[in-house]
Amino acid sequence: MLEALKEKVCRANLDLVRHGLVIFTWGNVSAIDRASGLVVIKPSGVSYDHMKPSDMVVVDLDGRIVEGELNPSSDTPTHLVLYKAFPNIGGVVHTHSTYATAWAQAGVDIPSLGTTHADYFHGDIPCTRNMKKAEVFGEYEKETGNVIVERFRQLSPDDTPAVLVRNHGPFTWGTDADNAVHNAVVLEEVAKMASIAVKINTSVKLNGIYITNFAPTMNKLLIEKHYSRKHGPNAYYGQKKK
Amino acid sequence: MLEALKEKVCRANLDLVRHGLVIFTWGNVSAIDRASGLVVIKPSGVSYDHMKPSDMVVVDLDGRIVEGELNPSSDTPTHLVLYKAFPNIGGVVHTHSTYATAWAQAGVDIPSLGTTHADYFHGDIPCTRNMKKAEVFGEYEKETGNVIVERFRQLSPDDTPAVLVRNHGPFTWGTDADNAVHNAVVLEEVAKMASIAVKINTSVKLNGIYITNFAPTMNKLLIEKHYSRKHGPNAYYGQKKK
Amino acid sequence: MLEALKEKVCRANLDLVRHGLVIFTWGNVSAIDRASGLVVIKPSGVSYDHMKPSDMVVVDLDGRIVEGELNPSSDTPTHLVLYKAFPNIGGVVHTHSTYATAWAQAGVDIPSLGTTHADYFHGDIPCTRNMKKAEVFGEYEKETGNVIVERFRQLSPDDTPAVLVRNHGPFTWGTDADNAVHNAVVLEEVAKMASIAVKINTSVKLNGIYITNFAPTMNKLLIEKHYSRKHGPNAYYGQKKK
Amino acid sequence: MLEALKEKVCRANLDLVRHGLVIFTWGNVSAIDRASGLVVIKPSGVSYDHMKPSDMVVVDLDGRIVEGELNPSSDTPTHLVLYKAFPNIGGVVHTHSTYATAWAQAGVDIPSLGTTHADYFHGDIPCTRNMKKAEVFGEYEKETGNVIVERFRQLSPDDTPAVLVRNHGPFTWGTDADNAVHNAVVLEEVAKMASIAVKINTSVKLNGIYITNFAPTMNKLLIEKHYSRKHGPNAYYGQKKK
Repeated sequence: MLEALKEKVCRANLDLVRHGLVIFTWGNVSAIDRASGLVVIKPSGVSYDHMKPSDMVVVDLDGRIVEGELNPSSDTPTHLVLYKAFPNIGGVVHTHSTYATAWAQAGVDIPSLGTTHADYFHGDIPCTRNMKKAEVFGEYEKETGNVIVERFRQLSPDDTPAVLVRNHGPFTWGTDADNAVHNAVVLEEVAKMASIAVKINTSVKLNGIYITNFAPTMNKLLIEKHYSRKHGPNAYYGQKKK
Repeated sequence: MLEALKEKVCRANLDLVRHGLVIFTWGNVSAIDRASGLVVIKPSGVSYDHMKPSDMVVVDLDGRIVEGELNPSSDTPTHLVLYKAFPNIGGVVHTHSTYATAWAQAGVDIPSLGTTHADYFHGDIPCTRNMKKAEVFGEYEKETGNVIVERFRQLSPDDTPAVLVRNHGPFTWGTDADNAVHNAVVLEEVAKMASIAVKINTSVKLNGIYITNFAPTMNKLLIEKHYSRKHGPNAYYGQKKK
Repeated sequence: MLEALKEKVCRANLDLVRHGLVIFTWGNVSAIDRASGLVVIKPSGVSYDHMKPSDMVVVDLDGRIVEGELNPSSDTPTHLVLYKAFPNIGGVVHTHSTYATAWAQAGVDIPSLGTTHADYFHGDIPCTRNMKKAEVFGEYEKETGNVIVERFRQLSPDDTPAVLVRNHGPFTWGTDADNAVHNAVVLEEVAKMASIAVKINTSVKLNGIYITNFAPTMNKLLIEKHYSRKHGPNAYYGQKKK
Repeated sequence: MLEALKEKVCRANLDLVRHGLVIFTWGNVSAIDRASGLVVIKPSGVSYDHMKPSDMVVVDLDGRIVEGELNPSSDTPTHLVLYKAFPNIGGVVHTHSTYATAWAQAGVDIPSLGTTHADYFHGDIPCTRNMKKAEVFGEYEKETGNVIVERFRQLSPDDTPAVLVRNHGPFTWGTDADNAVHNAVVLEEVAKMASIAVKINTSVKLNGIYITNFAPTMNKLLIEKHYSRKHGPNAYYGQKKK
């Protein structure tokens, strides 16, 4: 069942490796078939070297295995919470990509400092709060999803398709598995750019004087402009959709 | 028309990927045929994987499409402003290369700290000012060109063929498309070197004492020497031009 | 003798190069056959380009060459101390990988800041103390092993299979040579992540104010959770062991 | 003439590219035939893509071209000063490799912080002084050699085969061209390690308290130990010389 989606999810998982976001088994991609409410996800702890579409696991939104001989990714409950809470998303990606994970380890939002960021994410990339004891030692992976959803109470998951789970790493999502992978690549790149930009913090000469602890700031107008240039009814980036 | 230039511009766009300056569709190269006043530029949002010379778009200096079935790069108006204001340039490149973009996000000029920089750029790489509301929500891409031109009022675009657009990223130019790509590669490398150099700012022992917030400085004499060693009437770097 | 182990150790040494942890001859892998008490180790100063299983050297736990025509790695005495002190380990790796070595040069423990770290190492990666004159100019490589063992007096080498030798570089170990190499790759990655995370230290906005000298902190609960998720009796990461 | 040496120098130049130390034409390798006092060096500004042994230029120690149709590297006078002042060296390399150049731009010595450094360089990598106007606008490349030699008045070029020319970049040397290239690779790696180590300067917990502006220090004993372990009469690293 869902053979086409399995192939797509398998290839999307391998794309994480190709883009340098994942080593060993440190990542997972899933996609949902909204019609049936079934989710296709990577098996847990299986080497990317031999992964094939038939290894993908099909689960329902309650986490029951519907098809597949392997255990699904241990992060499956997090994916399911996101599919239930964010009705427009079709794919979810989790990685431990270096720079995004470093920001998650620092425990702060990635500030929107440039149009590279604003082209894809409408504002800062939010970081979740510290998880509590009952959450960590209870249904941990499900609660990880819950703190993400909690963080988006005032935010639109469609406008900012990425989050940092504190002391853990990034989750991204998108219209489908490929789009979620694309957003994961962009997130890692903007995380790298921001980590460099915030460190150009000393020996910087502004108006002729050297200053330390320099804080880069964003022109807020560009956040609106660049996001609307690529997204929404008046988008004019790229070719006309056929 | 302009088939040779289309081939050159197409290849120059692919060179951006080969040099690691561009992922996805995050860059564009154009070149001008000064005789006809026509500009050849990359189409907007087209994957580099399948780009071919016939996809290039020909526009006049007012932005009218003269030949081509695809939309030209959304940054086309910026390129056109530069061709009109800087009469000696033959090619323009825009990228979101990591380190140069990080400096643009920090919003400060890249200081000339070494001869690698001075060999190509005659002084600091300037960063443009914040754009105003009317500029951002008016003819944004054209105004982006205008703030670049404004920044070069006291500077020579021939001596310093690069700029950082604040909170956005770098533009470079050159005698032709290849030379503009070459300058984009050099800019990224000097941006990286400078970001490392300004961070060697603590734990540095000078004259036996550890100092913090160390500010590297450039020997200004080397700026003149290295620039004139490679450029101008007394240049002696490389082989004699045949 | 021990031909299968020689092949495994040779391949594990080459894996260090493949994973980008070693240039030139800057690393070594060994493995022990606990039944015979014999250790197979890389020869000293031999290029990885031409290394073959038959070049591996077999030594006993007192360092006597049992088989092999080449000198064993000059770090052999360090490996032997570890095999004698840590009875559960089957393989040892030494590299000068960039980020782990930088932390060793800084002379501080790598703080556990995220689940990437906690999945493999149960707490901070310890750094050894300064070595004394008699140690450095005595049996230096053996004493290097001794300061590692001293550092683990209150620590479990099975729970934290890595150490930084101060001003030198990392040693990792594992159940066999491959597992020790795997841990060396993970160590380098968490060292890189931590070096980025601790530098996101300025221009960071927390609760609306910019702060400097920001110190990332770890949710200690995640250290227990993630370690036990992958290790120990209740581990549920990956597929069931057959 | 000197065909074998030309082949060696040509290949050593290409090795700089292979090791990632050089882009475009930003580097040069030479070697000397001490018997004849002739130096073989890369031609100036020639692309590495098409470089062949017959392009190498032969000059005498006064800089006169003895054989070759192309201009020698514009840095030739610097190489010649080094061959005349340092009688034991057989090859010289100049690059603009990223991290070593960043330290040259910072204008400070690279501190010896670890055994990776101490294995090859006996103490800090020295940085030259600022050059004066008469030097920069006089025989600039020759004077560049002179400030290097001046910097080594109290240092042994055989023990520390590398220097940073302030605001410019590194020169390394060695027993022959290959050894000089090897030292250039090591220099870049230790420059990278040191730049990371000196930046682990905040948020570091020592004895339970967070400190800022942390200054890594080296155990001086290891400098002597590691250098003598690989060099000098009692060296025991590697295989016996046949």
